[in-house]
Amino acid sequence: MAVKSDIEIARMAQKKPIMEVGAGLGIPAEQLAPYGHDKAKVGADFIRSLADRPDGKLILVTAINPTPAGEGKTTTTVGLGDGLNRIGRKAMICVREPSLGPCFGMKGGAAGGGYAQVIPMEDINLHFTGDFHAITAAHNLLAAMIDNHVYWGNALEIDMRRITWRRAMDMNDRALRQMVGALGGVANGFPRECGFDITVASEVMAILCLAEDFFDLERRLGGIIVAYRRDKSPVFARDLKADGAMAVLLKDAMQPNLVQTLENNPAFVHGGPFANIAHGCNSVIATKTALKLVDYVVTEAGFGADLGAEKFFDIKCRKAGLMPAAAVIVATVRALKMNGGVKKEDLGREDVATLTRGCANLGRHIANVRRFGVPVVVAINHFTTDTDAEVAAVKDYVSRHGADAILCRHWAEGSAGISELAQRVAELADGGQAEFKPLYADAMPLMEKIETVASKIYHAGEVTADKAVRDQLIAWEKQGYGSLPVCIAKTQYSFSTDPSLRGAPEGHVVHVREVRLSAGAGFVVAITGEIMTMPGLPSAPAAERIFLSDEGNVEGLF
Amino acid sequence: MAVKSDIEIARMAQKKPIMEVGAGLGIPAEQLAPYGHDKAKVGADFIRSLADRPDGKLILVTAINPTPAGEGKTTTTVGLGDGLNRIGRKAMICVREPSLGPCFGMKGGAAGGGYAQVIPMEDINLHFTGDFHAITAAHNLLAAMIDNHVYWGNALEIDMRRITWRRAMDMNDRALRQMVGALGGVANGFPRECGFDITVASEVMAILCLAEDFFDLERRLGGIIVAYRRDKSPVFARDLKADGAMAVLLKDAMQPNLVQTLENNPAFVHGGPFANIAHGCNSVIATKTALKLVDYVVTEAGFGADLGAEKFFDIKCRKAGLMPAAAVIVATVRALKMNGGVKKEDLGREDVATLTRGCANLGRHIANVRRFGVPVVVAINHFTTDTDAEVAAVKDYVSRHGADAILCRHWAEGSAGISELAQRVAELADGGQAEFKPLYADAMPLMEKIETVASKIYHAGEVTADKAVRDQLIAWEKQGYGSLPVCIAKTQYSFSTDPSLRGAPEGHVVHVREVRLSAGAGFVVAITGEIMTMPGLPSAPAAERIFLSDEGNVEGLF
Repeated sequence: MAVKSDIEIARMAQKKPIMEVGAGLGIPAEQLAPYGHDKAKVGADFIRSLADRPDGKLILVTAINPTPAGEGKTTTTVGLGDGLNRIGRKAMICVREPSLGPCFGMKGGAAGGGYAQVIPMEDINLHFTGDFHAITAAHNLLAAMIDNHVYWGNALEIDMRRITWRRAMDMNDRALRQMVGALGGVANGFPRECGFDITVASEVMAILCLAEDFFDLERRLGGIIVAYRRDKSPVFARDLKADGAMAVLLKDAMQPNLVQTLENNPAFVHGGPFANIAHGCNSVIATKTALKLVDYVVTEAGFGADLGAEKFFDIKCRKAGLMPAAAVIVATVRALKMNGGVKKEDLGREDVATLTRGCANLGRHIANVRRFGVPVVVAINHFTTDTDAEVAAVKDYVSRHGADAILCRHWAEGSAGISELAQRVAELADGGQAEFKPLYADAMPLMEKIETVASKIYHAGEVTADKAVRDQLIAWEKQGYGSLPVCIAKTQYSFSTDPSLRGAPEGHVVHVREVRLSAGAGFVVAITGEIMTMPGLPSAPAAERIFLSDEGNVEGLF
Repeated sequence: MAVKSDIEIARMAQKKPIMEVGAGLGIPAEQLAPYGHDKAKVGADFIRSLADRPDGKLILVTAINPTPAGEGKTTTTVGLGDGLNRIGRKAMICVREPSLGPCFGMKGGAAGGGYAQVIPMEDINLHFTGDFHAITAAHNLLAAMIDNHVYWGNALEIDMRRITWRRAMDMNDRALRQMVGALGGVANGFPRECGFDITVASEVMAILCLAEDFFDLERRLGGIIVAYRRDKSPVFARDLKADGAMAVLLKDAMQPNLVQTLENNPAFVHGGPFANIAHGCNSVIATKTALKLVDYVVTEAGFGADLGAEKFFDIKCRKAGLMPAAAVIVATVRALKMNGGVKKEDLGREDVATLTRGCANLGRHIANVRRFGVPVVVAINHFTTDTDAEVAAVKDYVSRHGADAILCRHWAEGSAGISELAQRVAELADGGQAEFKPLYADAMPLMEKIETVASKIYHAGEVTADKAVRDQLIAWEKQGYGSLPVCIAKTQYSFSTDPSLRGAPEGHVVHVREVRLSAGAGFVVAITGEIMTMPGLPSAPAAERIFLSDEGNVEGLF
């Protein structure tokens, strides 16, 4: 039998009407705003009505450092949610919304894979419920109001050289990275350097994902720093009176999106900030709402655990008061082999020795996650090329580190292939072993926070930074931002800042090239190395192969 | 009793569930994709199934030249639809979607007024069903693919100086009008001049509004000219293989949006191209679908009849094979007085003499619309300041021109205030007097088409144009675009190109400054005077006063 593609599987799904999925969660029809028959937004009044309910258990799915071999973190998140439901637990998943731009570039869409997907896949990957468009609009309204303010006399005395707020577009378009705008004479304003970031890199995205409710959203939007004056004092979005209109634009985007998995289990797909310059998790409001609706909420963090889990714990959980009960670290035999040094073209060959060497990467992630007081289980996401000896080697390695590694076949078999992991996760979560605590205290100085993450999570030997960077951090502390967590933008491919350094490097140097203050979102970004906030398209973009078939199916997106 | 604001009236409305409104039109629930409980998109399969049904009667609502006094064209369109339903006729309206950008600028939102509105007003004025965002994304995907193509070697030999496709954003942002992009070195591409237009000015918008169905949409998108080579041969969107992905992005946007009026009558609100550089009408697919569903379809055209009705007839009806049965010209006593020379601050004073002089503007529009073979009735949209003598003067003037002018009070009274007009319109439409024909034949040379509109509709004495413009038109004729209609971009405030020339000027000179080919949409734009395709924000933008109240209401948008 030929293996079916993700999209073929998704199209075969017997979808439940979304109002029925919502009813299964106890959401009344009038509090569920449908978008078509298979997507809906949960009403704010209903969410407010949940406040007094007890919380379910929060389970984080994270992963080893990604390699070109693929790990299947979202697939495992979806599979685990289905698996928990299969063994009779009331569970749902919370994942991020994919970005539109990259769909037309290299990779096509993504919403899980195989028999562990959220649907409707095409919609989720295209406009979905319009959240990202709303974020783009709110972001660009603020940008327009800045230039407009300067145009009409600049009463706030904005230093035009110090406007930090760029524009946003949900598109891979390298030509927009660096521009000179407002050319063409008096009527078009004052020419200045400007540029666009992709929408997922917008601070508005991070704010939407961290806001507790609509009024917290508005307050955070007002706190965005858009520019500085000549005396270096900050100018806020609220100084421009932009916060109200931005929040209005985000009114619907703020509400969690309910969809379903292939097995008709509920899923929130909501928000999607970058995992480098932002915290890389779905929205707080979706996660918190889900915790009120079911007993187990499975969520994921971006990239590997060094970036994703650390930010999930130190930014999202800290800020939102979430207490994760268990964590799953996803690994594949293939990715561990690459971490050990196997080249992609040699992945088909059994190689237990190199695999075991690569397990060092997994071992460190296990230790790191435990450092946050969260119990861990490893999911080996099965590929057909994995040999028994290889799987045994991983299990053996993990067991020597005091945890279990469980082989999962959810990609091929759906929930039936992941029951054992589900069982183990439920036990862990119910076991009450978790004693979550963030890595550092709020009161720690900003530079020390960066050093703490670098030494304890990355195992770096040293953090370097120019005086200007250190001075900037101190200046922000004086302005009252010292208690914010740090958000380190680092390559996702390594514990170090060198993407080619796989495995578990030690004693490397982390150089902080630049720091940025996301005052509205509430974190300080430390940039190590080159971080691309506006991707480009490849030489043969996926867009060239995307079309609608005569049957009305979207082809080429996946 | 205090007069209620539009938004207060809209909030008091007893909305029917949109599925019920759809059921009233015979649309099965599974062919109606809901967006919330009060908006829905009509499915493509259902629309296809209507092909063999007979068409209802198409009624155009147009107006005299706009003045700062306001005319109430959309209000009258909505009122007339309600009025026809009130007198027992099965009717619906088709109007344009408002643009997001201008809501944050001067004017706030718009969806009719008083007791003649379409609802939900806030949603319609904000993101609605995401159509404009989809158009923006499709537009900008094409733009990204152009620069990306050049970046990766420029196999199509695009002359970078001759890239005509700009970018789009649904925002008033003057800083984006003229830019230099792709700065910053090799990785960002080749620097070049570029800029943004507001989304309603995008050719993608015009295409969506003229396309018969999804496959016609894709074909037209492919025919967009994005650039020229050094030899001046055109490069098309299909050469970049962008048409398929653009069409996929527009898959849902292509489907008409069903909402309702305050009186629970059905309304399609779909598409909204500019009425200067484009044709200014709602989508062909909405109008054609409505004609299959009801006996009377009331629709409107942009600006005054010189621009809006002419383009409705010569572009939309010609291209789509529509046969309008009757037309309503909306006038107000106030606007006619301004056309006669009264200043805005003096509008409160009775002035029959100046009013009668201003009626010349109305008289010419009556004659012009008749020239297309469409019978006319005038709607006097009542303002409380109108005196009996003034109303009588307008009625008398119109009657001397062989038509009826009917006083309408739909703004204050809803359908009850517009029954007489509804009755007269139904008689006209049923009377079979209409013998619609466009103003000029397809075969007429392009320059002659411009001259024909200028002389017959504008009563201009002469059309002037530089040799370059004339040569360009001839070149396009040689390339096979000679049979396209022309779309004249002219000030909406006058029959002439001088916005201060009110009334019915004669013998003026129309200078064609520039011509543009919208090859995908299928018309040639002739630009007379300055046409702004990216508005700016005023010194105190409406955005500063927009916020969400504690009760969850959007405040300040209206």
